[in-house]
Amino acid sequence: MLTRTASLTLTEQLAGRFAERIRDQLLVPGARLPSVRECARQHGVSPHTVVAAYDVLLAQGLVEARRQRGFFVRDTQQKAAGAAPAGERQAVPRPQVHAGLPAPGSRIHATALIRGMFHQSTARPQPGSGVLPPDWIDLPALPAAVRKVVNGSAWAQGALIYGEPLGDAGLRALLSHRLGALQVTAPVEQIMTTVGATHALDIVSRTLLKAGDPVMVEEPGWSVEFARLEALGMRVLPVPRHPDGPDLEVMARYCETHAPRLFVSVSVFHNPTGYCLSPGSAHRVLQLAQQHDFHIVEDDTYSHLAPEHATRLTALDGLRRTIYVGGFAKILAPNWRVGYLAAPVPLVERLLDTKLLATLTTPSLMEKALAVCIEQGQLRRHAERVRARLDVARSRSVKLARAAGCRFVAEPAGLFGWVDTGVDTDLLAQRMLDGGWLLAPGALFHASRQPSTLMRISFATTQEAAFWDEFQRARDDMLRRHA
Amino acid sequence: MLTRTASLTLTEQLAGRFAERIRDQLLVPGARLPSVRECARQHGVSPHTVVAAYDVLLAQGLVEARRQRGFFVRDTQQKAAGAAPAGERQAVPRPQVHAGLPAPGSRIHATALIRGMFHQSTARPQPGSGVLPPDWIDLPALPAAVRKVVNGSAWAQGALIYGEPLGDAGLRALLSHRLGALQVTAPVEQIMTTVGATHALDIVSRTLLKAGDPVMVEEPGWSVEFARLEALGMRVLPVPRHPDGPDLEVMARYCETHAPRLFVSVSVFHNPTGYCLSPGSAHRVLQLAQQHDFHIVEDDTYSHLAPEHATRLTALDGLRRTIYVGGFAKILAPNWRVGYLAAPVPLVERLLDTKLLATLTTPSLMEKALAVCIEQGQLRRHAERVRARLDVARSRSVKLARAAGCRFVAEPAGLFGWVDTGVDTDLLAQRMLDGGWLLAPGALFHASRQPSTLMRISFATTQEAAFWDEFQRARDDMLRRHA
Repeated sequence: MLTRTASLTLTEQLAGRFAERIRDQLLVPGARLPSVRECARQHGVSPHTVVAAYDVLLAQGLVEARRQRGFFVRDTQQKAAGAAPAGERQAVPRPQVHAGLPAPGSRIHATALIRGMFHQSTARPQPGSGVLPPDWIDLPALPAAVRKVVNGSAWAQGALIYGEPLGDAGLRALLSHRLGALQVTAPVEQIMTTVGATHALDIVSRTLLKAGDPVMVEEPGWSVEFARLEALGMRVLPVPRHPDGPDLEVMARYCETHAPRLFVSVSVFHNPTGYCLSPGSAHRVLQLAQQHDFHIVEDDTYSHLAPEHATRLTALDGLRRTIYVGGFAKILAPNWRVGYLAAPVPLVERLLDTKLLATLTTPSLMEKALAVCIEQGQLRRHAERVRARLDVARSRSVKLARAAGCRFVAEPAGLFGWVDTGVDTDLLAQRMLDGGWLLAPGALFHASRQPSTLMRISFATTQEAAFWDEFQRARDDMLRRHA
Repeated sequence: MLTRTASLTLTEQLAGRFAERIRDQLLVPGARLPSVRECARQHGVSPHTVVAAYDVLLAQGLVEARRQRGFFVRDTQQKAAGAAPAGERQAVPRPQVHAGLPAPGSRIHATALIRGMFHQSTARPQPGSGVLPPDWIDLPALPAAVRKVVNGSAWAQGALIYGEPLGDAGLRALLSHRLGALQVTAPVEQIMTTVGATHALDIVSRTLLKAGDPVMVEEPGWSVEFARLEALGMRVLPVPRHPDGPDLEVMARYCETHAPRLFVSVSVFHNPTGYCLSPGSAHRVLQLAQQHDFHIVEDDTYSHLAPEHATRLTALDGLRRTIYVGGFAKILAPNWRVGYLAAPVPLVERLLDTKLLATLTTPSLMEKALAVCIEQGQLRRHAERVRARLDVARSRSVKLARAAGCRFVAEPAGLFGWVDTGVDTDLLAQRMLDGGWLLAPGALFHASRQPSTLMRISFATTQEAAFWDEFQRARDDMLRRHA
């Protein structure tokens, strides 16, 4: 709700809110603003205030009026076409607003969700966030590890050369040991560090695929993966993800008709469902890969939140046609930006070439400091604490979510809950943004981004009754108006 | 020259040397090994030793014998085709050995040169290296800056969230100031940090181009740029680089026939020639860009070695259709991996999307520490010292190179000399590798990688008479045998 303040008029506040959302791509080009009447109702202001605010946005060139149809977000990149080369395609596909969408609002798109993760306008834990809140991962060991590394002489000398192409050897030895505990046999020379797990996935797609190649990705799945593959020009073949693994019949059909070269999979605590791959399903996926000759990249981002004995494709396969990807953003420090991959011998050199051409090496300071945390057992003990805390948080979140009218479509596990709200979560997300809450609507997790009543919640950031109260009010209001 | 040691036989040493070179891609798949007789002569061993060494390589599967033709390096990726999907294209094009190449040896390819930069097998300064030797850039300010950052509370909290998508705001403010001194007006919100300048160039190509798009690149030019564009599937249009700038007639022709979308250029201390763009040429390049509607990315990697008043396209253009790329690997610490770009307003969001999809954010610790070094004036004073030292080194290198029979095809300036040796530098490079010297043969700087008598030397690493003595011996031997 907007409130009168001395410094800003209601019109300025309302215009400012829309302007910020347009800049942050929480409202994408082509999205329709709410009707004047609806907007006035939602924000508790007079229609006159809304008209004045929309006029401000018009004057700023952020929206355009279409006769009889209302106000729409302008494509600011086309606006600047005079200065920039014309006819450029969008590197990141910006979804068109779905024709069937009832009325105001628009999709929250993949990079918008990422940007939401960086938003510091509010200290509040965000229900749609993919990372743990800072107070969960505040580890004094990190700065101590950095101090230890810079006080040593080896690092300073190492910084003055480019460093090892595959990444810090000490860290890679520890990662090899860690993978051993997961029953993934990966010698040091098959491990390569990256700028976070995202970079590892990017390197894998760039190395194994070329523009136009078909690639299988689990659906629902992580929107950044869809967006990146599309930006690279790949043809995404969505594979339904079931509780015990990917849909093998759909995969077999794709193999017959499209001969995809790669399958992107999250085996353990799959995002957004929390599903874990069963051993039988893992075996059959690998059989299919053998039969149809494709590679698999296993994104094990949530590995530290799971027991070591969870089933992994790379463990069964022995890194023959599978590539393991891991990182520390979900357990240690998102800004640390250290990830890694472990790959079959014949692929290592090619993946390394891609890394070198894209970024040369990675900063050894971050890698050596991480190695200190692993070596001294701090990471392992920290992960144990986080898992225990997450178990408690999950129980509480599940109760609150159910009380607010959500139904869990997947058995609650890991970091994320995948819930059915009964209302369009694209619209719900826009509503909740007004109250400062960032949601992760279901459309974000589908390759085609179709509207959905599902959404992903993080168990670590949905502890507050205040959030669920507001959620319930917004949801009830939507159900009432729809009825 | 090989020498008898207690631990390794001459055969083992010789086999080991070839094996290492094949692994490091200094000898690429398809390359022919020297004939037994030639190899025996070069290494001062008996033909029997060479035959035994080649047998070892055969047994290791690294080379294959072709009847009547000799020994060739095997494609180890094809070797493993049984385990990996068949028919995969090489992500990084590995050049075929040129049919006209006289005899033994092969090309040193782009990623091999990069790997040479990381080689720690010898402490020797490498004539082909693109970075300053560690003792030139050993700056005690760096570890001190890191300590200062980790001892503050702001950073530790910042590491626990993903951080600002565009990069550390404090650093970007300083970069904006620095660009102002170069007469490039770039507000903080048009500046984005990256994992080194290489990453910035990669983000620009991925954002502005799609596979198959034509792109103009100066030739001679930096091989990693050619290799990356080719790996991304772009069509590289080489533009001859002259002392005052790129060949405008060739560019105009390309514009008529191919309508390229991007021109990649190094205005100041161009690599490998050391040329600097003239104001008149800059103006005409920008006119052409306006007329034919393409973007320009200006790689200003050598900026800290040049006077501030050097002509830059981005300064004339005011970041309208130009993108500025800078970094610190050439002046501060290659492993720091902090680079940046400054872009026109309409491109910033698109470039940011590409960064987010490829690596999410960059580590703020490295950025904040760099900011400390800049803010306290340490970087500026350090750059002054390096420039003075380079001036002295350049004079000495030029004398030594000329005395060894080299002719400078470009007026010596900046970090690199571009010299004509009078002999095939691909072959020369293989010869010099035997003595532990890594050269940068001319073929590396041409899109088509044709053999050349030119090579690039770094003035910072060609101070030793010992190198030039060996160079002269090898060159004279080649000239004598050719005569």
